Amino acid sequence: MNNKWMHQLMKSSPVTIPSLLMEHYASIGINEKEMMLLLHIRHFAQEGEPFPTPDGLSGRMSANISETANLLRDLVRKGMLEIRENQDQHGRISESYSLDPLYEKLLTHVENEQYEAKEQSGREDEG
Amino acid sequence: MNNKWMHQLMKSSPVTIPSLLMEHYASIGINEKEMMLLLHIRHFAQEGEPFPTPDGLSGRMSANISETANLLRDLVRKGMLEIRENQDQHGRISESYSLDPLYEKLLTHVENEQYEAKEQSGREDEG
Amino acid sequence: MNNKWMHQLMKSSPVTIPSLLMEHYASIGINEKEMMLLLHIRHFAQEGEPFPTPDGLSGRMSANISETANLLRDLVRKGMLEIRENQDQHGRISESYSLDPLYEKLLTHVENEQYEAKEQSGREDEG
Amino acid sequence: MNNKWMHQLMKSSPVTIPSLLMEHYASIGINEKEMMLLLHIRHFAQEGEPFPTPDGLSGRMSANISETANLLRDLVRKGMLEIRENQDQHGRISESYSLDPLYEKLLTHVENEQYEAKEQSGREDEG
Repeated sequence: MNNKWMHQLMKSSPVTIPSLLMEHYASIGINEKEMMLLLHIRHFAQEGEPFPTPDGLSGRMSANISETANLLRDLVRKGMLEIRENQDQHGRISESYSLDPLYEKLLTHVENEQYEAKEQSGREDEG
Repeated sequence: MNNKWMHQLMKSSPVTIPSLLMEHYASIGINEKEMMLLLHIRHFAQEGEPFPTPDGLSGRMSANISETANLLRDLVRKGMLEIRENQDQHGRISESYSLDPLYEKLLTHVENEQYEAKEQSGREDEG
Repeated sequence: MNNKWMHQLMKSSPVTIPSLLMEHYASIGINEKEMMLLLHIRHFAQEGEPFPTPDGLSGRMSANISETANLLRDLVRKGMLEIRENQDQHGRISESYSLDPLYEKLLTHVENEQYEAKEQSGREDEG
Repeated sequence: MNNKWMHQLMKSSPVTIPSLLMEHYASIGINEKEMMLLLHIRHFAQEGEPFPTPDGLSGRMSANISETANLLRDLVRKGMLEIRENQDQHGRISESYSLDPLYEKLLTHVENEQYEAKEQSGREDEG
């Protein structure tokens, strides 16, 4: 094991997962395979590839290309993932994945939970 | 959504995954469900709980308690996860999970890959 | 350079800084030396030492012990850092640093900035 | 405080600092102001700006533009920071900062320290 790997390890930003997401993804209907796929998308974006192919994603997962393509389609259908079209200054169009809908769903979920907790504690105080 | 959640989000350290791990876990025989379980263990340790129960882990996953217990057992059997006994200064014994075997396996894999790449390029140069 | 360091690098969680903090610490009156000191406190807490000594902190900084002690005192006085007393189940008291006041100040600042931006754009619309 | 900020906080990757760097930057002759400047450069790169101006950097620091420009110059002179020229497929040239020399220096330092520790313990065993 040489310097090259150490260097690589130091240089490359780790993928980070907000703890709120770790704690609540299952409650908003995401399973572990989908969660890891979303993390791979976040990772590719960090590396400068905002629209990785099913092929590229599958190469880092224990899922073949067609299974990966299906997972992507399902995440889009469930409203957790979005495909965006971007236009640069030369008018060239490119696509990218956005995890914004996921974060929205997560925040709504957390808000509701908090609201229900308050309601609940209000009712208990009255009783 | 109020300040309380913002505060929480700022305060709590995200879970971090070294990119080397993201890129190679599948190659060393870990699937996505197992990977997420290992990340939950890392997360619990960050929160000061080095030996979370299958119950606690399952509460954050899309897996029930007995499935989670099985996943833990398999990871230990495959040599990716270790249970350690620790003794504090008062002689009290506690247990904790260690991901050290996982990191060892990962580094060995990466080393071999690098070695093989060199061998390969050496052979091509000769041919 | 051997496996041991690679292992260490993989295992040890990096210190993370929320981007909101990176972008606004200077606006709430924190300079770079203070910011790094706060990050060292966060780092020590991650390593299981919630109340590092000026000596321990200074050992990782380009500041001697007495300068470090002064920086700590100033941060407490400015309301960015708090010392908390904790009592465990055996009644033993221990102290820890809390960065909560820092996060509060940051959120208040960001809220105000947002409010002023709205006010400003409102006034421009009217004019 | 509204959803918008929560969303932002969740979405934006935090800046991460390898613990090895936190523990040894002072030993390789970097002070806190320089360290924060390097972190800002890392942050800008994450945001897609690999060559931020002294103006842009200074806007997030407690240092004015000319002080920031001096800090950058010193870091380059001390061999901690490098300016690279990159050419895209259309032949356009752009510049970017690279922290590679910093990581090299850090790894060399850590290696030496380890070597000296071994030497030392060897000598003690003999004595």
